[in-house]
Amino acid sequence: MSGYQVDDATVEEIETERATYEPITEATRRLADLCIRSQVDAASTARALEHLQAAIDVLSQDVAEGPYGLRHSRQGPTRPWGNAVVGVRNPVAPPLKVVHETDHVWSDFELSSAYEGPPSLVHGGVSALILDQLLGEAAAAAGSPGMTGTLTVRYRRGTPLGALRAEARVERTEGYKTFAVGQICDAEGVCVEAEGVFILPRWARSEQEQPERFE
Amino acid sequence: MSGYQVDDATVEEIETERATYEPITEATRRLADLCIRSQVDAASTARALEHLQAAIDVLSQDVAEGPYGLRHSRQGPTRPWGNAVVGVRNPVAPPLKVVHETDHVWSDFELSSAYEGPPSLVHGGVSALILDQLLGEAAAAAGSPGMTGTLTVRYRRGTPLGALRAEARVERTEGYKTFAVGQICDAEGVCVEAEGVFILPRWARSEQEQPERFE
Repeated sequence: MSGYQVDDATVEEIETERATYEPITEATRRLADLCIRSQVDAASTARALEHLQAAIDVLSQDVAEGPYGLRHSRQGPTRPWGNAVVGVRNPVAPPLKVVHETDHVWSDFELSSAYEGPPSLVHGGVSALILDQLLGEAAAAAGSPGMTGTLTVRYRRGTPLGALRAEARVERTEGYKTFAVGQICDAEGVCVEAEGVFILPRWARSEQEQPERFE
Repeated sequence: MSGYQVDDATVEEIETERATYEPITEATRRLADLCIRSQVDAASTARALEHLQAAIDVLSQDVAEGPYGLRHSRQGPTRPWGNAVVGVRNPVAPPLKVVHETDHVWSDFELSSAYEGPPSLVHGGVSALILDQLLGEAAAAAGSPGMTGTLTVRYRRGTPLGALRAEARVERTEGYKTFAVGQICDAEGVCVEAEGVFILPRWARSEQEQPERFE
């Protein structure tokens, strides 16, 4: 059920994986932006499509069966590399690099045209997506990881595409529930606020008592 | 401020735009999944990267300055084609095709590995993203379009990646505020519920009275 993977990947192996797949992921992010903004003609997109198909053919020669999951190494850093917000191997993710401080987490990031909702503004749901991730990381950083139970997002004003900062911190913990708050700001101040309740899943509660189940 | 564009694109021109850019967008979605799941070696990803760069070079020859926006045609359908949930030119979007019925909107869709949060589950924020879009479309379909004011999402259980259905409808309207509710279900039933308040922006209120400003 948990789907967590624990392996013995060394720091070097993890860096090799990153060096192997991060460049194609970054190129695919640039392509996502160009699919939206390019104005070249049909003959040009047909030529581009041939190259994309060639890349697909190469990458399809050996494909894992399921999604990436969350890979823990006994020897190196954890890899949430398929995650839709922070995944360095996921072109759908901006991706955010989240900094964990003692009492809060934060991230400076840029949102491209691919995150648009209302014209020239960040999609309200993208702000919710990012805040869910940040609030969840704040809960985990405070020692209370969990699945989102409830997320409430308040939109104070439109959030512009471009450079933004997100922050989150834990307000309090009650048993298996952790209450976190956060916000997204542009240079002018707060655009969106959120609060979330994160709940340690039942299977993880027993695993906390029986850590060998993580192995 | 509004960023809305009105043009005279004909139905044929709109179909030509779709035929020109939809195939590269779909190919880029497949690439996003492969960036996460491919297991080919570094020599292979280097070869794939050359093709991706060649496609980038072609598509970069003529690029619009800003994001796609929301393009209204006086002669054909509206194109929200850069939208992060429904945009047919946006590889970050699954994309959802939303069906508008008399009293509700719905969409059947599939979420790939690129929308993962917890292992093998949909990212909680991705569910929020999709529900924000559906609730907003329900408000618009009921004649009360608006920007999201507040969005509350309740997670009943983990949402599996794969085939899902989202639905939304308007509960009530109070002046410029529209209250909408919705849910995401898998084959077993409801996974996530949401309620949202959508607010007609101030500039749109005056534009409703002075529709020529839309021109």
